[in-house]
Amino acid sequence: MRQSTRGQVDPFIVMDVMEAAARAESSGRHIIHMEVGQPGTAAPRGAREALARALEQPLGYTAALGLPRLRQGIAGLYRRWYGVDLDPARVVVTPGSSGAFILAFSALFDAGDRVAMGLPGYPSYRQILRAMSLEPVGIQTRPEDRYQPRPDELPDAEGLILASPGNPSGTVLRTDELQALTDSAWGRGMAVISDEIYHGLSYGERCHSALEVTDEVFVINSFSKYFSMTGWRVGWMVVPQSHLRTVERLAQNMFICPPHASQVAALAALDCIEETEENLKVYARNRQLMLEGLPRAGFTRIAPPEGAFYIYADVSDLTTDSLAFASEILEKAGVAVTPGLDFDPERGARTLRFSYARSTEDVTEGLRRLTEFMASR
Amino acid sequence: MRQSTRGQVDPFIVMDVMEAAARAESSGRHIIHMEVGQPGTAAPRGAREALARALEQPLGYTAALGLPRLRQGIAGLYRRWYGVDLDPARVVVTPGSSGAFILAFSALFDAGDRVAMGLPGYPSYRQILRAMSLEPVGIQTRPEDRYQPRPDELPDAEGLILASPGNPSGTVLRTDELQALTDSAWGRGMAVISDEIYHGLSYGERCHSALEVTDEVFVINSFSKYFSMTGWRVGWMVVPQSHLRTVERLAQNMFICPPHASQVAALAALDCIEETEENLKVYARNRQLMLEGLPRAGFTRIAPPEGAFYIYADVSDLTTDSLAFASEILEKAGVAVTPGLDFDPERGARTLRFSYARSTEDVTEGLRRLTEFMASR
Repeated sequence: MRQSTRGQVDPFIVMDVMEAAARAESSGRHIIHMEVGQPGTAAPRGAREALARALEQPLGYTAALGLPRLRQGIAGLYRRWYGVDLDPARVVVTPGSSGAFILAFSALFDAGDRVAMGLPGYPSYRQILRAMSLEPVGIQTRPEDRYQPRPDELPDAEGLILASPGNPSGTVLRTDELQALTDSAWGRGMAVISDEIYHGLSYGERCHSALEVTDEVFVINSFSKYFSMTGWRVGWMVVPQSHLRTVERLAQNMFICPPHASQVAALAALDCIEETEENLKVYARNRQLMLEGLPRAGFTRIAPPEGAFYIYADVSDLTTDSLAFASEILEKAGVAVTPGLDFDPERGARTLRFSYARSTEDVTEGLRRLTEFMASR
Repeated sequence: MRQSTRGQVDPFIVMDVMEAAARAESSGRHIIHMEVGQPGTAAPRGAREALARALEQPLGYTAALGLPRLRQGIAGLYRRWYGVDLDPARVVVTPGSSGAFILAFSALFDAGDRVAMGLPGYPSYRQILRAMSLEPVGIQTRPEDRYQPRPDELPDAEGLILASPGNPSGTVLRTDELQALTDSAWGRGMAVISDEIYHGLSYGERCHSALEVTDEVFVINSFSKYFSMTGWRVGWMVVPQSHLRTVERLAQNMFICPPHASQVAALAALDCIEETEENLKVYARNRQLMLEGLPRAGFTRIAPPEGAFYIYADVSDLTTDSLAFASEILEKAGVAVTPGLDFDPERGARTLRFSYARSTEDVTEGLRRLTEFMASR
């Protein structure tokens, strides 16, 4: 049977690593998970209790843009986190941030259009773009720029994806940087999509939304990370007034609606800040352990991340094949880590990403194993 | 900000009708819902109980292709329903059948490719195709062909979508028809996608899967209809062995995974056949009431549907503007129905779709209101 060209996207390597780790576990080994971008914690208790109470209801289709109360609650988050007054009508609940990207790309770009993003960066940007007949344009960012693009060096393209905190870098864009980047993109006729999925997870200054500097931006976020609800597949997108009806029609047809049960849980999660802030304290502790432990183990070229729950390590002194190195670490140390190739198809052969999203016990044990492995190497 | 051309899809009219009905309800009116393609019943009790028990677990990302046990369970359904021996590895769990269409179209077609489908038909086929820079090619089917395409009249295109039972027609393809259509499509180099979302809901002979006649087909189905789980957003797709890895990579990047909580509920739903068969009996009763009551009310040009839970009515003796007619029925009779324009952009101006997926009480009251409305017209 025919195969499309655009369907030939790269695998999401971290998911293959997860499967390899799962295979090792099912053969009886104990694996420490530093590969995966998800909290070890469940959804907040209040979220799960709210869903348990709602299970007697039919939970049929919701409106395509999501439950009205959830859209209001998300708008409220913008006041709470950023002091931004946001019309709930501009909030679109989506099937994960993944669904938001599909909607944003469909609403903004036609086949053949180019969309730029910093490298290293979230791999699925590039693959979703390819699957939609769009052309990803990677911007080689520099460690001295904290792996973020320079406003005066944007390539020729129809769109720009910003990510703050970055994945895998964890670096955060300040408002003046957001302003300069969106201004520059606008000057070049580029639509801007701001990926803010790790907001709420920062260890110094708070994260800044692109909505603090402009309304002419697609802002994408999710309940996956800060609210510890990865598998629930509820994200959201804030769209400019001008694009609301377009996005609504696309959402009606492409997704019908986000999962209803997950929306019920997400609505309640908005009120579980005590629990989510506790989780944040765990990540902060884990981050500190990683910043101390990784260099001691021999991973010396790391930059302290300002947000998210990853450490991106330059391992060019240790390997030129991060895929093989990650396999070796899984095999010999029993620690799953992600080869940088997911995030940067060229330079990623000499980088690794370590996640510290799991429990402090896991992080401690993982560091112990990594230290032992590196010593024996 | 820039808008894409492909983003300018038609609205999903039934969802606008649902919103109009909801507005009428919030202003205090009582509305009978014959517009909506979803059961009034909740997910099976066993499904909800299984999820309630699972809520203490983290419910993080699952494998991109879905929970292995769910894939096995779905494969088992093919033995139970069709006597087909299906390798669970070929089963891809998706975020609703909507997600399955996005994956299938991405894996099979490149920008500019044409994909044919019978009209009247599910409107989102056409809109999802447009949003993905593909060209929908409508095949004008005939009432005397039970609104299904003729094998010898397929248009020039790269793909063909079959739907049995059809929506809105409810007509079912027999195995000889499936064979003739897939053979003809193959002869023309067309990939075939078989939409079987209403399987399990038939009122005479059982429904036949395209997998009974060929493995070289993408088969799409869902827990939404027979299992009464619309808002849960769990569907599935059976793909040829040759396309598995492509679809897996697309799913990893475009969706990460289907909603975990919904997958847990879906797995348990597979064992709730007693309850789902009870629902089917209700639809059968409702269908009988509709087949008697609609003609009595004055909707005389209807064909008995063999499956699904819709009646497609030719109302050309009553109107040439089904949109206005549906508004009038909502306004004056308090019954929400769907204008045929959703399903057939031309001839649908003179058709309506009535759903009988809700309770028998609702169907009875709806028919009473329709009768009264038509008498006063």
